Amino acid sequence: MDSRDVVKKRSLELLAKAGIVITETEKQQLEVADFGLGQIMITGLQIITYINTDRYCAKELMLLPGQTCPEHRHPQRGTVDGKQETFRCRWGTVYLNVEGPKTEARVSQPPIGDEAYYTVFHEIVLHTGDQYTIDSNTLHWFQAGPEGAVVSEFSSTSDDASDVFTDARIQRLPSDPQ
Amino acid sequence: MDSRDVVKKRSLELLAKAGIVITETEKQQLEVADFGLGQIMITGLQIITYINTDRYCAKELMLLPGQTCPEHRHPQRGTVDGKQETFRCRWGTVYLNVEGPKTEARVSQPPIGDEAYYTVFHEIVLHTGDQYTIDSNTLHWFQAGPEGAVVSEFSSTSDDASDVFTDARIQRLPSDPQ
Repeated sequence: MDSRDVVKKRSLELLAKAGIVITETEKQQLEVADFGLGQIMITGLQIITYINTDRYCAKELMLLPGQTCPEHRHPQRGTVDGKQETFRCRWGTVYLNVEGPKTEARVSQPPIGDEAYYTVFHEIVLHTGDQYTIDSNTLHWFQAGPEGAVVSEFSSTSDDASDVFTDARIQRLPSDPQ
Repeated sequence: MDSRDVVKKRSLELLAKAGIVITETEKQQLEVADFGLGQIMITGLQIITYINTDRYCAKELMLLPGQTCPEHRHPQRGTVDGKQETFRCRWGTVYLNVEGPKTEARVSQPPIGDEAYYTVFHEIVLHTGDQYTIDSNTLHWFQAGPEGAVVSEFSSTSDDASDVFTDARIQRLPSDPQ
């Protein structure tokens, strides 16, 4: 079993713990994003996209214990505002960092060695049942607590290819040009 | 305990069965809609609105066993297309009827005495983990199976006041003028 298969298996276990049922097709389509950094257990995100129309989008996000989705923002695209999104923690704990006053006693920390690529430290703690809405074009990153986390994302239309990451090494989509 | 309180209590029990956690504030704000028909156990819908911005909306819908949300559509408002919405069954079974070829051997039936207010009978059966997207301005109604149902609704912006019901007796909002 390669590391992506392990990540996928653990992500499905998290969904089961959260009591969330998905179809066999959705299991096959589960996206494992390592952002091109090759350290999936540290920096990565697992995603099921339920629906993404030209009006709205809904996803389930799974994070392994301590796993981090790296800092990024959703910029304006042409005349359309960048993606606005609401994170609702369904299971576990997630530490969401956004622009704003730095939280001094925060729990989440950038992955060791990647500190240069993390610039916002206003930490919002989301336990099961908590949610937070991130405005478009706002820098954010998030990290799961020690049990991992399952997060429902409700948003405007998603266009991952337009995401801007603070870490220029990052490839959001496997098919991105280098 | 009046009937609304009973409905609220049972709706919270359905959410618990679905493994969905909500906050105390959300419990207080749970909406019990009887559509002004005064037969909440037969025709009604219980709703938690997680988020409703000018771009997207997400709700949790709870239906008691056999309870029906009556036929309606979401029309265009000014230059904005009517609400488009995706129903994802999280727990139980829901029978969704939309415009299209009539399903002859369907399970769901309009509430007795209200048959005149139901005109679309293309039945889609959503078990746990199944979903369906309803285009704007499309007539639809839905009914829970014998266990009740919990349904996540992902959609464009929600404006309940603009809903058009087939049954002209219906008041969607308690504050609607008669």
